[in-house]
Amino acid sequence: MADGAVMDADQDPGGAVSLARDLIRCPSVTPDDGCAISALAGVLEGIGFSVTLLPFGEGAARTPNLFARLGTGQPHVCFAGHTDVVPVGNAAQWSHDPFGGEIHDGILFGRGACDMKGGIAAFVAAVRLYLGKVGTPQGSISLLITGDEEGPATNGTVRVLEWMAEHGQIPGFCLVGEPTNPAGMGEMIKIGRRGSLNARIVVPGTQGHVAYPHRADNPVHRLLALLGELTVAPLDGGSDWFDASSLQVTSLDVGNTATNVIPAQAETRLNIRFNDLHTGADLAGWIRTVVARHAPRARVDISVSGESFLTEPGAPVEALRASVRAVTGQVPRLDTGGGTSDARFIARYCDVAEFGLVGASMHKTDEHVTVADLRQLTAIYTGFLEKVMH
Amino acid sequence: MADGAVMDADQDPGGAVSLARDLIRCPSVTPDDGCAISALAGVLEGIGFSVTLLPFGEGAARTPNLFARLGTGQPHVCFAGHTDVVPVGNAAQWSHDPFGGEIHDGILFGRGACDMKGGIAAFVAAVRLYLGKVGTPQGSISLLITGDEEGPATNGTVRVLEWMAEHGQIPGFCLVGEPTNPAGMGEMIKIGRRGSLNARIVVPGTQGHVAYPHRADNPVHRLLALLGELTVAPLDGGSDWFDASSLQVTSLDVGNTATNVIPAQAETRLNIRFNDLHTGADLAGWIRTVVARHAPRARVDISVSGESFLTEPGAPVEALRASVRAVTGQVPRLDTGGGTSDARFIARYCDVAEFGLVGASMHKTDEHVTVADLRQLTAIYTGFLEKVMH
Repeated sequence: MADGAVMDADQDPGGAVSLARDLIRCPSVTPDDGCAISALAGVLEGIGFSVTLLPFGEGAARTPNLFARLGTGQPHVCFAGHTDVVPVGNAAQWSHDPFGGEIHDGILFGRGACDMKGGIAAFVAAVRLYLGKVGTPQGSISLLITGDEEGPATNGTVRVLEWMAEHGQIPGFCLVGEPTNPAGMGEMIKIGRRGSLNARIVVPGTQGHVAYPHRADNPVHRLLALLGELTVAPLDGGSDWFDASSLQVTSLDVGNTATNVIPAQAETRLNIRFNDLHTGADLAGWIRTVVARHAPRARVDISVSGESFLTEPGAPVEALRASVRAVTGQVPRLDTGGGTSDARFIARYCDVAEFGLVGASMHKTDEHVTVADLRQLTAIYTGFLEKVMH
Repeated sequence: MADGAVMDADQDPGGAVSLARDLIRCPSVTPDDGCAISALAGVLEGIGFSVTLLPFGEGAARTPNLFARLGTGQPHVCFAGHTDVVPVGNAAQWSHDPFGGEIHDGILFGRGACDMKGGIAAFVAAVRLYLGKVGTPQGSISLLITGDEEGPATNGTVRVLEWMAEHGQIPGFCLVGEPTNPAGMGEMIKIGRRGSLNARIVVPGTQGHVAYPHRADNPVHRLLALLGELTVAPLDGGSDWFDASSLQVTSLDVGNTATNVIPAQAETRLNIRFNDLHTGADLAGWIRTVVARHAPRARVDISVSGESFLTEPGAPVEALRASVRAVTGQVPRLDTGGGTSDARFIARYCDVAEFGLVGASMHKTDEHVTVADLRQLTAIYTGFLEKVMH
């Protein structure tokens, strides 16, 4: 398939490849929109969606978002995603223009190809194919699209969800189109994510000469004692759907080059990825208690960037799983590992699961997706809609 | 006593104050000699000493030293000290010229006043007073003076001792004139010092995302484990003459500011001040064994800057103690604490003890010694010579 060739409907069912290329050509590196949201709005209106543009934030923080809904009935199934992409890095190292949307040997190259313009395009194509079959759906289909998932995520999905709640637009189930498959289509559906907590602990001491430790108060030894207690045992052994929680100390900083001086201060940073056996507040309390025992004068700053969440497998997840199996022949694993996504915000409002393309090239040079995978994902999403929309 | 007044013999027995002022006026900040060694050589020759100037090292590392001996018989008692001084710091903060040798209200100000030009001057004065009493001594008295105790100490006492050994000049006992008294004359004689070991441990790991710790190898956790084992228990409970050994971790360095990244490397520095229950080699072996258990790929750099040493109290130390008691009315504590001094090198050749002025102002702005203390030290050294030289 040569670059620039127009694909006919047989080659590109629902127009997923064509739309993916159009979206890749919008250079929407967070926080820029690069025409992506407006282009998508036009496509959705063409299909019959009612589209509401929802820019939130002021000045440099202004974030483009949209909510679109087709129909008003139940069931109401929502697809969530983002049009923004991470920077290309060194563009000279790319084999193809990162914003060119070029196809070579059945592979579509470009920033956002798998994370996740390709996912959005596949869902829009699936809606087209589904509507082609059923005409008017019994329930309703919506899309929650943000232009700030890769950035601070302050004026994106969180704000759109608040607007949806105020306007009675909360769906019964939400499918997030993040690239969940590690290596091949059909491997993994995410039905939850671990929570994430960051802590910074600054331990003051009393400087002094190493030869007279009784006249000093070595903050390093206090830090070692509290980190020893925090890391001595696993946080848990995992739960029904989650791996064990994990605490990683990511930095230690003293910066003392004098070998004969006990330093005045020591600090550390740590991150906890935690499962549904914990809450951010419980873990923060535990950290503060341990720190207070070893270093009462320490300063502890803790931020919880997301609580863990889980959608217990039910009808929508089973529908998704069945469609994946029908299209790929694989039974996808129901997983809760890995990093965080905007699904953590959606989980506060409704059940949510994540399934999308193969993520191996995401955030990397020569990000890409195969045309075959785009077709498979379109078919999977189509089958999912057929199963849940009745 | 006004600045600049000439003191008569009654006011300055043996000329200790006068010589201390002359030496302070030589700006001998390591590695500069500032005339100090040559001035001292002239004074010693005037008393009858055979003086050998022993400059060692080349170029910028050239260090002035001298060895002087009066008499050739036994017992041979040596006095060791240094004419070099630490920098003055901000001279504007001094109340008096740091190289002026000014006396105000019975206090002699200047860099080196207590550490340890004052000590050298008191010893030379004591020799004058002793010779004035006995005429020709039965044994012999020597001085080992270096111009590099405050610096790298490579071409100073170590090299002079080698020369002394080659030339049959090793004494039976050596008195080091470092300021051993914490607050008042007569408090403390040092009969040993702890050893000192420095280690730098660099632990490599494998960088990765905190959400996938099983794909990374967190060097911080390896470092915490090995430091936990190194610091979990005291090294010992002290020995007959020594306090407990002390291990102080002086720095931890990772420098990772990304909260979601497991870093590629972590390092630490530690110092051990150890007593006579250990050797530097034993401790180095222990550290390497512990590190290898937790971080086999770690790099360990260890340097032992001095082994511990001890002069068990015997006749010379008892003579010194008795003289201190006679002059001050105090029974000095026999101590092995604090930092290191050139006594660690001398201990390889002969028994050594340390007694000098009050060290409270050493290395500080407005370093000083009282004229009264200089007189007391002169009397103590004189009494010591009278007791040991027979």
